[in-house]
Amino acid sequence: MTARAIGPLSLNTVTVKERWGLAECIEGCARHGIPGISPWRDVLQAMGVERAARQIRDAGLHVSGLCRGGMFPANDAAGRRAAIADNRRAIDEAQAIGAACLVMVCGGLPPGSRDLPGARAMVRDGLAEILPYARDAGVVLGLEPLHPGTCADRSVLSTLGQALDLCDALGPGMGVAVDVYHVWWDPDLDRQMARAGSRIAGFHVCDWLVPTTDLVFDRGMMGDGVIDIPAVRAMAEAAGYRGALECELLSRRWWGEDPDRVLETIKERHATVC
Amino acid sequence: MTARAIGPLSLNTVTVKERWGLAECIEGCARHGIPGISPWRDVLQAMGVERAARQIRDAGLHVSGLCRGGMFPANDAAGRRAAIADNRRAIDEAQAIGAACLVMVCGGLPPGSRDLPGARAMVRDGLAEILPYARDAGVVLGLEPLHPGTCADRSVLSTLGQALDLCDALGPGMGVAVDVYHVWWDPDLDRQMARAGSRIAGFHVCDWLVPTTDLVFDRGMMGDGVIDIPAVRAMAEAAGYRGALECELLSRRWWGEDPDRVLETIKERHATVC
Repeated sequence: MTARAIGPLSLNTVTVKERWGLAECIEGCARHGIPGISPWRDVLQAMGVERAARQIRDAGLHVSGLCRGGMFPANDAAGRRAAIADNRRAIDEAQAIGAACLVMVCGGLPPGSRDLPGARAMVRDGLAEILPYARDAGVVLGLEPLHPGTCADRSVLSTLGQALDLCDALGPGMGVAVDVYHVWWDPDLDRQMARAGSRIAGFHVCDWLVPTTDLVFDRGMMGDGVIDIPAVRAMAEAAGYRGALECELLSRRWWGEDPDRVLETIKERHATVC
Repeated sequence: MTARAIGPLSLNTVTVKERWGLAECIEGCARHGIPGISPWRDVLQAMGVERAARQIRDAGLHVSGLCRGGMFPANDAAGRRAAIADNRRAIDEAQAIGAACLVMVCGGLPPGSRDLPGARAMVRDGLAEILPYARDAGVVLGLEPLHPGTCADRSVLSTLGQALDLCDALGPGMGVAVDVYHVWWDPDLDRQMARAGSRIAGFHVCDWLVPTTDLVFDRGMMGDGVIDIPAVRAMAEAAGYRGALECELLSRRWWGEDPDRVLETIKERHATVC
């Protein structure tokens, strides 16, 4: 292994979502010596934002992100307005816990729609509308390109290049959250990582299993799949990224495991694989 | 519907692979008035190449492609040589049946490998090695970018832009086979379709279902999913493509249906959806 400029390790709470709430995740990170955390909004709200912010601070944890804002496309104006309002609340929450970014999962096609350019326009318009609020809050919007397998129902933002085009168009306050699972296949990845430069606001790891039996909930533990994680990490480092390496694992198999064993495994794979 | 410059409709034999061999497909196309066919090599070889060529000719069917060449990456030189030899046989077969192109599914990572640049290099080298043979045979190699969900195990060639970069590098005799299922999500699609121009050697249709329950074998019948097929067809037409519109449907659900009903449905959807 080469020396890593990226650190600290961070736990995304979805990784143990079936068994631990946010309080258990905070305690678990402290107990296992994992220095970072990235909550999803459901567990954050369940714990209470202020209480969570205090306990995260007291535990000395770095907050590598808040998951997630976005989900802009909707079939009517009321739905799009509701998404904007919800994104403002997400920005407030990200500010309250000092998150390095608000991870943006931008949304797929509205139900019944085949209008991909239309959905992309809704994403751009939604981002433009919340960006001033995010800037005022000092919260970076970290656009997460999602694997093309989720284009229909989760994110019409599918590549890092597309995310950076949006960053270019929208200006300061925009960044990208790079998850190796979503981008590893991209033939343009090294060029786009270099282009991203200081706009990389988050770096997520897990692995691509062969076979993959579910488009969303069958991600692998680092080292169990085919992604050359060190190669992508090296691209992020070369681009200047020095933030957290966050493990975000949506996996029915790992959700069934004892969370303490999951955290031990993450630490071990972080040291040997990432 | 706008008038279609693309035609004729063609049946890819994999669409009814559980119930019909190639002879039944040829008879079925003739019976249903489907003017084109695109065999897979397994059914072609099972029928016998010469006999198949004669019956296809006698039935007056256009051959929109032969599926498939490719699968270049392998862990050792012997494996890569075997792939080259098999691709030469595929070129012979494509020539024998007068296929508009040999569809190239280029192959994924070799088993156990995480070396994506290495696999891509094996694809490029394999194509370069067979291209002179294909040129001599007058067989166009139609590179089919496959959905990124199959990058690990079926094709490290994932985007149309990447396929066209290979065409540019390798020169005359190379083309692309565009399947809406594999490319519909691509934010760069319209630009790359225009760039492809006369190199579009095949145009395949089916649909992307929501949810999709299998990364390979859960494709939808045209109209049952979210792909704006007319929009992609219009891009192909604007690029100058005037070849077949081929229905290639890998679907456990449709494989269970009566093939005559499948062909009727394809014809109806071709008229109303594509």
